[in-house]
Amino acid sequence: MTTPVRLRAVSAPDQPDVTPALEDLYRGFERELLVPLWTEIGDLMPVHPRSKARPHVWRWDSLRALAAQAGEIVPVGRGGERRAIALANPGLGGRPFATPTLWAAIQYLMPGENAPEHRHTQHAFRFVIEGEGVWTVVNGDPVAMRRGDFLPQAGWAWHAHTNATAAPMAWIDGLDIPFQYLTEAQFFQPGRDELSDAERATPDRSRAERLWGHPGLRPVSGAAAPDTPGSPLLAYRWAHTDRALADQLALEAEGYQGTLEPGHAAVRFTDPSSGGDVLPTMRAEMHRIRRGTETAPVRETGSSVYAVFDGSGRVSVGDQSWSVTRGDLFVVPSWEPFSARSQAGVSDSDSGALDLFRFSDAPVFEALKLYRTQSPGTLS
Amino acid sequence: MTTPVRLRAVSAPDQPDVTPALEDLYRGFERELLVPLWTEIGDLMPVHPRSKARPHVWRWDSLRALAAQAGEIVPVGRGGERRAIALANPGLGGRPFATPTLWAAIQYLMPGENAPEHRHTQHAFRFVIEGEGVWTVVNGDPVAMRRGDFLPQAGWAWHAHTNATAAPMAWIDGLDIPFQYLTEAQFFQPGRDELSDAERATPDRSRAERLWGHPGLRPVSGAAAPDTPGSPLLAYRWAHTDRALADQLALEAEGYQGTLEPGHAAVRFTDPSSGGDVLPTMRAEMHRIRRGTETAPVRETGSSVYAVFDGSGRVSVGDQSWSVTRGDLFVVPSWEPFSARSQAGVSDSDSGALDLFRFSDAPVFEALKLYRTQSPGTLS
Amino acid sequence: MTTPVRLRAVSAPDQPDVTPALEDLYRGFERELLVPLWTEIGDLMPVHPRSKARPHVWRWDSLRALAAQAGEIVPVGRGGERRAIALANPGLGGRPFATPTLWAAIQYLMPGENAPEHRHTQHAFRFVIEGEGVWTVVNGDPVAMRRGDFLPQAGWAWHAHTNATAAPMAWIDGLDIPFQYLTEAQFFQPGRDELSDAERATPDRSRAERLWGHPGLRPVSGAAAPDTPGSPLLAYRWAHTDRALADQLALEAEGYQGTLEPGHAAVRFTDPSSGGDVLPTMRAEMHRIRRGTETAPVRETGSSVYAVFDGSGRVSVGDQSWSVTRGDLFVVPSWEPFSARSQAGVSDSDSGALDLFRFSDAPVFEALKLYRTQSPGTLS
Amino acid sequence: MTTPVRLRAVSAPDQPDVTPALEDLYRGFERELLVPLWTEIGDLMPVHPRSKARPHVWRWDSLRALAAQAGEIVPVGRGGERRAIALANPGLGGRPFATPTLWAAIQYLMPGENAPEHRHTQHAFRFVIEGEGVWTVVNGDPVAMRRGDFLPQAGWAWHAHTNATAAPMAWIDGLDIPFQYLTEAQFFQPGRDELSDAERATPDRSRAERLWGHPGLRPVSGAAAPDTPGSPLLAYRWAHTDRALADQLALEAEGYQGTLEPGHAAVRFTDPSSGGDVLPTMRAEMHRIRRGTETAPVRETGSSVYAVFDGSGRVSVGDQSWSVTRGDLFVVPSWEPFSARSQAGVSDSDSGALDLFRFSDAPVFEALKLYRTQSPGTLS
Repeated sequence: MTTPVRLRAVSAPDQPDVTPALEDLYRGFERELLVPLWTEIGDLMPVHPRSKARPHVWRWDSLRALAAQAGEIVPVGRGGERRAIALANPGLGGRPFATPTLWAAIQYLMPGENAPEHRHTQHAFRFVIEGEGVWTVVNGDPVAMRRGDFLPQAGWAWHAHTNATAAPMAWIDGLDIPFQYLTEAQFFQPGRDELSDAERATPDRSRAERLWGHPGLRPVSGAAAPDTPGSPLLAYRWAHTDRALADQLALEAEGYQGTLEPGHAAVRFTDPSSGGDVLPTMRAEMHRIRRGTETAPVRETGSSVYAVFDGSGRVSVGDQSWSVTRGDLFVVPSWEPFSARSQAGVSDSDSGALDLFRFSDAPVFEALKLYRTQSPGTLS
Repeated sequence: MTTPVRLRAVSAPDQPDVTPALEDLYRGFERELLVPLWTEIGDLMPVHPRSKARPHVWRWDSLRALAAQAGEIVPVGRGGERRAIALANPGLGGRPFATPTLWAAIQYLMPGENAPEHRHTQHAFRFVIEGEGVWTVVNGDPVAMRRGDFLPQAGWAWHAHTNATAAPMAWIDGLDIPFQYLTEAQFFQPGRDELSDAERATPDRSRAERLWGHPGLRPVSGAAAPDTPGSPLLAYRWAHTDRALADQLALEAEGYQGTLEPGHAAVRFTDPSSGGDVLPTMRAEMHRIRRGTETAPVRETGSSVYAVFDGSGRVSVGDQSWSVTRGDLFVVPSWEPFSARSQAGVSDSDSGALDLFRFSDAPVFEALKLYRTQSPGTLS
Repeated sequence: MTTPVRLRAVSAPDQPDVTPALEDLYRGFERELLVPLWTEIGDLMPVHPRSKARPHVWRWDSLRALAAQAGEIVPVGRGGERRAIALANPGLGGRPFATPTLWAAIQYLMPGENAPEHRHTQHAFRFVIEGEGVWTVVNGDPVAMRRGDFLPQAGWAWHAHTNATAAPMAWIDGLDIPFQYLTEAQFFQPGRDELSDAERATPDRSRAERLWGHPGLRPVSGAAAPDTPGSPLLAYRWAHTDRALADQLALEAEGYQGTLEPGHAAVRFTDPSSGGDVLPTMRAEMHRIRRGTETAPVRETGSSVYAVFDGSGRVSVGDQSWSVTRGDLFVVPSWEPFSARSQAGVSDSDSGALDLFRFSDAPVFEALKLYRTQSPGTLS
Repeated sequence: MTTPVRLRAVSAPDQPDVTPALEDLYRGFERELLVPLWTEIGDLMPVHPRSKARPHVWRWDSLRALAAQAGEIVPVGRGGERRAIALANPGLGGRPFATPTLWAAIQYLMPGENAPEHRHTQHAFRFVIEGEGVWTVVNGDPVAMRRGDFLPQAGWAWHAHTNATAAPMAWIDGLDIPFQYLTEAQFFQPGRDELSDAERATPDRSRAERLWGHPGLRPVSGAAAPDTPGSPLLAYRWAHTDRALADQLALEAEGYQGTLEPGHAAVRFTDPSSGGDVLPTMRAEMHRIRRGTETAPVRETGSSVYAVFDGSGRVSVGDQSWSVTRGDLFVVPSWEPFSARSQAGVSDSDSGALDLFRFSDAPVFEALKLYRTQSPGTLS
């Protein structure tokens, strides 16, 4: 689709005087498909990032209910391929973009259903807010999905999902679809229609975990050398994540360093073959904010999506603020200040802590030397 | 600006049956700002990149004339800051984006004019098609600009331009404005109103060249360690580029390797402190296609902008083909096949060779492991 | 100590004719402290590495007995600092060098004893063949040592050892002392005479494990960013190592890849912040050779020290071959072929497997692009 | 050759009491090839590096004369392969080691002579103090050698030398022979007996320079991608080095940064494909000390060899000090303080500057995180 250039000479302090000569110039620009910087600089080159995306929260109850409703009437299969329902940021034109670079969706699989095998260059992960019973089969390796598990799946890996139980299951998908859409990097390939019997197995641990899931150890075998662009470890289990967070808070209580700030523990999911981010374009972390703690406001270039994994609290994003509870999702656009407070009493967890899962596009910013952050004390 | 979600149930092979239940579901999605994958997957996850951008050529004569016209009536200074006129790809909504990630503009400075000092996180370079007489002052270092020179300027470096002669001068600007606009990474800061006398000097070589412009040598001094995210060398002179291209073709004629393919020499501008690309987000190269040679078609993820530096020829981009000559600019969108042929006789150069300057977003794709290319023989 | 040059003209096929002129030349060389290449090239530039070190085995029973004997009569403390008794390769001039680059020793601590705090640039680790009861205190963090544990300690980290029990304990020390001695890189600093009460604690897990010992997870806190040149994880527990080896053999039995070769599982101890070797100059691995399996012979540049952790077997190193059992140590010099066979029945373990701990100087060779290996099939 | 362990119980403050039990223990150690740390720690683990090597100077006149004498009576060819005469540091046992890791030699080729083709894993370079007329042929590419040129040759590259003139020529060889000897990494392979006619050509510029010798530019061709472990650029010409040094001093005179310290310019020879050191194990630099300048004392881990390229001066190394002039070579052992002073008037150069070529093992120390330096002001 071809779009013309349309320029309008306006009378404004920073603009050239509106004269017939200027109008004539602008008509020439339009004819030749040109746009002058002086009409655009305010939008294109702001003093600091002013995101098109807006702070917004999506409620788990609504998401879950609509996903279940879709489960009843929309088939999974070729065409849509997945029963995935994406967050559409209200500032991004009604497109299924949670932020300018990130896709976040709820995916829903009915008992006995299979999402067919395919692969794509978009990097992806699953994160489980509740439930269990689905195995995601990545390059032939069945990986159980259970509450609290984080399951990365690097670009161009074959994958299918199969619900081996009698209950439906929902989970969160994160992908870099908007980023690859904007940069126009995407490839997609459909796979086989049916999985093999071996792929329909429902082991407790995946083969990837058996090879790569031992702390500080890597297999020496050449066969195990990762050939994908992301982590060879396909599941990060909640038991490990939970223990790591509890350890940090316990160290703090004993007087040692370990937390990110007082009362705020945080771990990052990493590629054990490199120690770096789990996926080339996405960072994923789990944060725990102890009962009664409020984090210091911070802002960063790049955007994040948060999911409340456990507990309740109140979060502030830019000029917005919401009470949130399990399963709620919200976005933090580029350079918007963010802070969170746990709310004991409201929480239905024993600890009163607020557990937040977060993913962001930080690896893009770091790789290209565009990452900036403003430390809490310097925010006004 | 908030935009609603609008979903339309359509009767199509890959879509769910249009029923009242589906309509009800879609109204629920709209209410909760959700978009299902199944209505979007064809656009978001294509089999291979299908660029929104279109192959297009801009003619130097028109560009040059409109820039001169702007020189007469549009002031340089605060507000627009620069008299820069950008290519607006006809597929990109009338925005000043040559491709989804790259900005290309002609900038024009009248005799005695100064473009005021500022800095921004957007990475930039200048490339000179014709003329001379402007010095770009980068972090206080005046750098002469002459035909054939390539002048990178990494993000967040202070810079101003000053025309020290009695004639106007035009040149090509390349920046990653669209990429940083889409990822929302941009910072901008205005600088001083006036340059110092030392900065108004017009030396033949910049201080950067005197420190970093010696082949295979780097200064040992800590002072010279680069603190910017890109190349510390601020000018790549045409004499060097020209000789490197001539050397490759001479080696080929003597029976040795060196050219990219028969009759096609190419050099890449690199950061001498790392050997890598000259800027974190942009690759820049000069290509020389010998008289009577046609390059093999190739396609790549990511987009490029080409400028004809010398000679004449015919270029093919996707399903388009144009005769081009000195100063013409054209774009190659992601995954569109590209080839070029020199046209002896039409050329006004002695050699009959076609010299093409090219810049692209390849470093983004390589850093994030998204780069793919299809070698000539495998294109159908 | 100054040493003169001594040259002897010899009559040999590759040497210059012995004449008065040559004798006169050689006297000139000696006077000016010069040595010609032609008398030395055979030794200095061999066709492939011919190690000065020799294949040799040290028996655990003898080592253990002599260490206990030393425990009775040699104090731990300033001066020697440690009750460490090093392997002296018979080819290396009676010096305490297991190989030209590696130090291996048995260290022995009596009940209630403390090895005083110090630090040095030499990288080190402990590996426990038997027993428990000592805590090594690294930068103030007490780390329990038990059978099968691997405990790295990067250069310039403060460390002391304290035996908190009523029994003596022995373990294996590995350091790069010979490498740093030859390259002359060493610094040493004595520390405090006494540890604090907090440092005398005997926790089950170290603080390092609580921060860094969770598979695929890293702490986000800046405080936890490693500032030492090696792994921030101070203990690799046997339970994890054992499970990782068992997992590889089980995967093989199920028909999947994972082992290094049939019946031969192997894991490498890695720095979780980088995925690379646990120490800048030393690689450490654990190998398990299944009952009745013989590994294919392989040779590599660089040298290794092996310790039999469990089981019995027969190992071949160059032209040597020995039966080995728990605790025996042996060396594989550069480019000497190595293979190992488990010996079921002789073994006192249930499984009949042979477990070999190995450390080597491979990171030096890899970092400097000097690593070579010859794959099994190509060895004659 | 097997060497026994010999231990002597001595009565000393830091040693165990000499008793029959100790003597018995030591006999046990000897029998089992063991050496205790407590007798060795002072030598093996010093407070800071105390080099076995000694500061020493070799005089060019003597070197040159002896090399010429060897030219008359010692053939070049199989066996010795090269007429190379190496510096033997007086502290290193009469071996041809300038420092514990570095080899430095004068090589001498008579008119019409050829040093036969071979290759080896040892990294090497040539540096020309005086004369010209020899071409070194590296992987078939003839490279002219002239005064001031630096010519690296990475490990495992085929190379031969041929004197195409009627006069003998001498130059300096630098290799990592001692380092590879100590680590036992060396491979060697003899090549063809005769070079082809094309390889006997005597071009002004090598093919390597034509591909890689343009400042900030690299060939795009895959063919030109370096496959050796060091720099693909085979000659760094004096004209470039000289100009880079002059530029730094001129910048300083104009009030800008650029020199290493006042009056002291320095450039490092780098691999243009990486910006790093020209060879994996050796750093090479050229320093210019302006007339009347004395450098601040500095010390570093690792050792260096210096050659006076031009001018005269006085250098201090540890507790030694010498007047030096063109062609003199001297060594700076690990952690010995070094400074240099130019001596105007004595110099036969117009400028009165002292030009020092230097090579060192710094890349080994940096890659393995063993590099330390003490800045001038902190030396007592």
